[in-house]
Amino acid sequence: MASMLLAHRLACGFQHNCRLLVIGSRHISQAAAKVDVEFDYDGPLMKTEVPGPRSRELMKQLNIIQNAEAVHFFCNYEESRGNYLVDVDGNRMLDLYSQISSVPIGYSHPALVKLVQQPQNVSTFINRPALGILPPENFVEKLRESLLSVAPKGMSQLITMACGSCSNENAFKTIFMWYRAPGCPDYSILSFMGAFHGRTMGCLATTHSKAIHKIDIPSFDWPIAPFPRLKYPLEEFVKENQQEEARCLEEVEDLIVKYRKKEKTVAGIIVEPIQSEGGDNHASDDFFRRLRDIARKHGCAFLVDEVQTGGGCTGKFWAHEHWGLDDPADMMTFSKKMMTGGFFYKEEFRPNAHGCAFLVDEVQTGGGCTGKFWAHEHWGLDDPADMMTFSKKMMTGGFFYKEEFRPNAPYRIFNTWLGDPSKNLLLAEVINVIKREDLLSNAAHAGKALLTGLLDLQARYPQFISRVRGRGTFCSFDTPDESIRNKLILIARNKGVVLGGCGDKSIRFRPTLVFRDHHAHLFLNIFSDILADFK
Amino acid sequence: MASMLLAHRLACGFQHNCRLLVIGSRHISQAAAKVDVEFDYDGPLMKTEVPGPRSRELMKQLNIIQNAEAVHFFCNYEESRGNYLVDVDGNRMLDLYSQISSVPIGYSHPALVKLVQQPQNVSTFINRPALGILPPENFVEKLRESLLSVAPKGMSQLITMACGSCSNENAFKTIFMWYRAPGCPDYSILSFMGAFHGRTMGCLATTHSKAIHKIDIPSFDWPIAPFPRLKYPLEEFVKENQQEEARCLEEVEDLIVKYRKKEKTVAGIIVEPIQSEGGDNHASDDFFRRLRDIARKHGCAFLVDEVQTGGGCTGKFWAHEHWGLDDPADMMTFSKKMMTGGFFYKEEFRPNAHGCAFLVDEVQTGGGCTGKFWAHEHWGLDDPADMMTFSKKMMTGGFFYKEEFRPNAPYRIFNTWLGDPSKNLLLAEVINVIKREDLLSNAAHAGKALLTGLLDLQARYPQFISRVRGRGTFCSFDTPDESIRNKLILIARNKGVVLGGCGDKSIRFRPTLVFRDHHAHLFLNIFSDILADFK
Repeated sequence: MASMLLAHRLACGFQHNCRLLVIGSRHISQAAAKVDVEFDYDGPLMKTEVPGPRSRELMKQLNIIQNAEAVHFFCNYEESRGNYLVDVDGNRMLDLYSQISSVPIGYSHPALVKLVQQPQNVSTFINRPALGILPPENFVEKLRESLLSVAPKGMSQLITMACGSCSNENAFKTIFMWYRAPGCPDYSILSFMGAFHGRTMGCLATTHSKAIHKIDIPSFDWPIAPFPRLKYPLEEFVKENQQEEARCLEEVEDLIVKYRKKEKTVAGIIVEPIQSEGGDNHASDDFFRRLRDIARKHGCAFLVDEVQTGGGCTGKFWAHEHWGLDDPADMMTFSKKMMTGGFFYKEEFRPNAHGCAFLVDEVQTGGGCTGKFWAHEHWGLDDPADMMTFSKKMMTGGFFYKEEFRPNAPYRIFNTWLGDPSKNLLLAEVINVIKREDLLSNAAHAGKALLTGLLDLQARYPQFISRVRGRGTFCSFDTPDESIRNKLILIARNKGVVLGGCGDKSIRFRPTLVFRDHHAHLFLNIFSDILADFK
Repeated sequence: MASMLLAHRLACGFQHNCRLLVIGSRHISQAAAKVDVEFDYDGPLMKTEVPGPRSRELMKQLNIIQNAEAVHFFCNYEESRGNYLVDVDGNRMLDLYSQISSVPIGYSHPALVKLVQQPQNVSTFINRPALGILPPENFVEKLRESLLSVAPKGMSQLITMACGSCSNENAFKTIFMWYRAPGCPDYSILSFMGAFHGRTMGCLATTHSKAIHKIDIPSFDWPIAPFPRLKYPLEEFVKENQQEEARCLEEVEDLIVKYRKKEKTVAGIIVEPIQSEGGDNHASDDFFRRLRDIARKHGCAFLVDEVQTGGGCTGKFWAHEHWGLDDPADMMTFSKKMMTGGFFYKEEFRPNAHGCAFLVDEVQTGGGCTGKFWAHEHWGLDDPADMMTFSKKMMTGGFFYKEEFRPNAPYRIFNTWLGDPSKNLLLAEVINVIKREDLLSNAAHAGKALLTGLLDLQARYPQFISRVRGRGTFCSFDTPDESIRNKLILIARNKGVVLGGCGDKSIRFRPTLVFRDHHAHLFLNIFSDILADFK
């Protein structure tokens, strides 16, 4: 740690370098940087172009063992802190992408440093259990301190997984097991054009953000509905956008009917609160409420994928909390900022949820004497009974039961690791920090500063910036085309700001939860200068 | 740590309890326990039945948020060390299952304790990167110290993943991308009856160890070949077993032909060196060599799943090294004992492997003047050219190229985390320990002690034990039926030995790599007593 702090102080000494970068006409003047010496840096500090010589050397080495063309640069995580990512050439950048939206409370947060250093936590990092069969003593306690303390409304059940894809794969399986329509030969999950739900083969059948993800990979014939393409600014296109959303919802219902006829019954609908990889596509809260209604009407499970939107960046812990659903979603997946993957779900989706079992005793009535083989067939139940006993006329006693009552149901959603308690441990502390420092309010506040500034830039540079949109710090805008978008990202990086793209021409903001107003202003000043010079 | 050591010493004081358990007629007398006071315990120590009252209380708590019926008991990992798993009721058990075969060098290994406590490693545990775009400076170095130092023959390429299922999913995708038969509408992966390759939806299409895994889940129509069912003892059934293996291989070839006709061309074959979840089913080295030949003959990729067999337990680092293949396998997946998932593969499978590109210049010859639209169509190439340029008669210049030359190929095998550097860090140290302590030789040696003892038990208790088999410590035997198998596992647990089942009536041994001869003898004594009393 000593070397880290020393290097930090040295780096601070070179602040004039960073100031040079932000000189120019300031359209926002309140950018008085608030410096947290213990944790965050106070601005970018660029020493080489990025990737610099050391990164390029390491990329060559990596490329020998795997395709390294996706690598942006190599990082010095020891020196990275707060909102600042330091690379191996000593460049320090304001990170608005945060490892594809997966760093919750900034790099090297002191609370997490302390946690790893505590002797009582060592065992958790080195003795990884098979959680489904041999959990550690504090398993439930750590889940209570972490995930259960932020459980979405209506969902009491929780299973952890190692990543986002496994979370969606297992959520799908849970839906299929729950659905089990007798006589239904096959099920499907309805997803939306532009959606991204992961790259394993079940997930991939619901991912449609880029064609390249799917080429050559066998897939399922599952229905894909259009996702609304809203026009901005929203207040000018109220009617058009309503019509657009209505069109998409109508198509959802049509597809559900069509796939039922095709005997690929839609067992569930999966949707992101904001389509992220697909281009930060928003829809109104009303759209999602209606979608939820459609799911209920047709008996489909309603699964919300919060892998990218979850964890507080929209100003609420889960983005779908903005919708104000009367009837909560059935299931919600998470990963990234939550440090572990997993999913929450309603109790009725437990693979072995007995609830209140409905047992019909046909010991005397069974066997045909009532005119049907079983007397309870006269009732015309929509939801069949759970169990039925028989004897007498049947020559032998016994009982039939629904598969959910099979004794081996516990292993139905299972794998060796089922996540990782060391991530639960870290997450418990992350959630402490989020609550203690009120980082949800911060995300709402800093997000407003960012969005206001972006709208101002849009007004001044309409030729480069359009469709500014966002919720909390989960903001984005469109550029004229992919080439300009990529050029802007590269220029920004060399000016000390890490940005990410999404869709075909959008730039997305995915800062950490410790991104504050002054970071927004710092970025806006730098980016304003870039746009002023851009040709 | 102080409290851990203190508790350890206290526990050692109660050794007489453990000795009580192993009293009885000793069929193996050399069981002089070698005690490593720093690390391993010297025997089981039972205080309650298992699960004890504290475990049962915690199971109730866990069951509120997820189905907890698969939980065996809750563990005290802080007190667990070496080959001994300690539960929350203070019971200390010799662990021959090691978290479904996923603990490489025992619990709380001092080398790993030290590693986590080193200040320079803290950052790796708290700053998890998106490895595909922003790897840490020591990424390649740690891979070299860990996975690359044990790379299987012929495979220079490596991608890490968070778990075994993701490893197989991405290996399949890599195979499909590599295969890309022009005009082929669909691909498949051939797997074997009894195989287990994971539970995500792509993997699940190749998993056939238990019907319950697949009920209600949509799947692919992919070919499933029979896996040899060998008769034991092998030396008595040489001819029958050869015929059985030949029958299975013939069926493999028939299926490849059949699925080509169905337009679901077999792009790859996946196989475990020892079918583990499916019942520890072995085949001869010759079987696998022939299977490899069949794969080559039909142009299918040959993928070996070493998720359970890999990491040294068979006496070689990878079980498939026993086969002595002339032409190495194409791809190999791993996870569990390797602490991180991932897969190795040959360079020709790189999604963006250009190799030596074959470029045809049809600037003058193209456009029909040779009697075919492109002159090179006269050649009848089996493997099409990689690229072709045109101009002149085509009115515009340009070039066609194979998709593997697409600039965005690097993102084709990708997800946010792509494993976890903190696991690579731990693994580097694990592999140090394996090499330093020559744990592969130990696995071969201790495995021999275990297998010899099991054969002896089989001779003495043929009514309970049959088909004793194994490689290294990766041993197993069959019991008469599932109910007796499960009963034996429960009795053993209460005598201080954790065992695992597999298939429908097998017991499997999956000890750590620090399992030594004296642990084998200790187990054999305890189990011999159990069998003597069993009714």
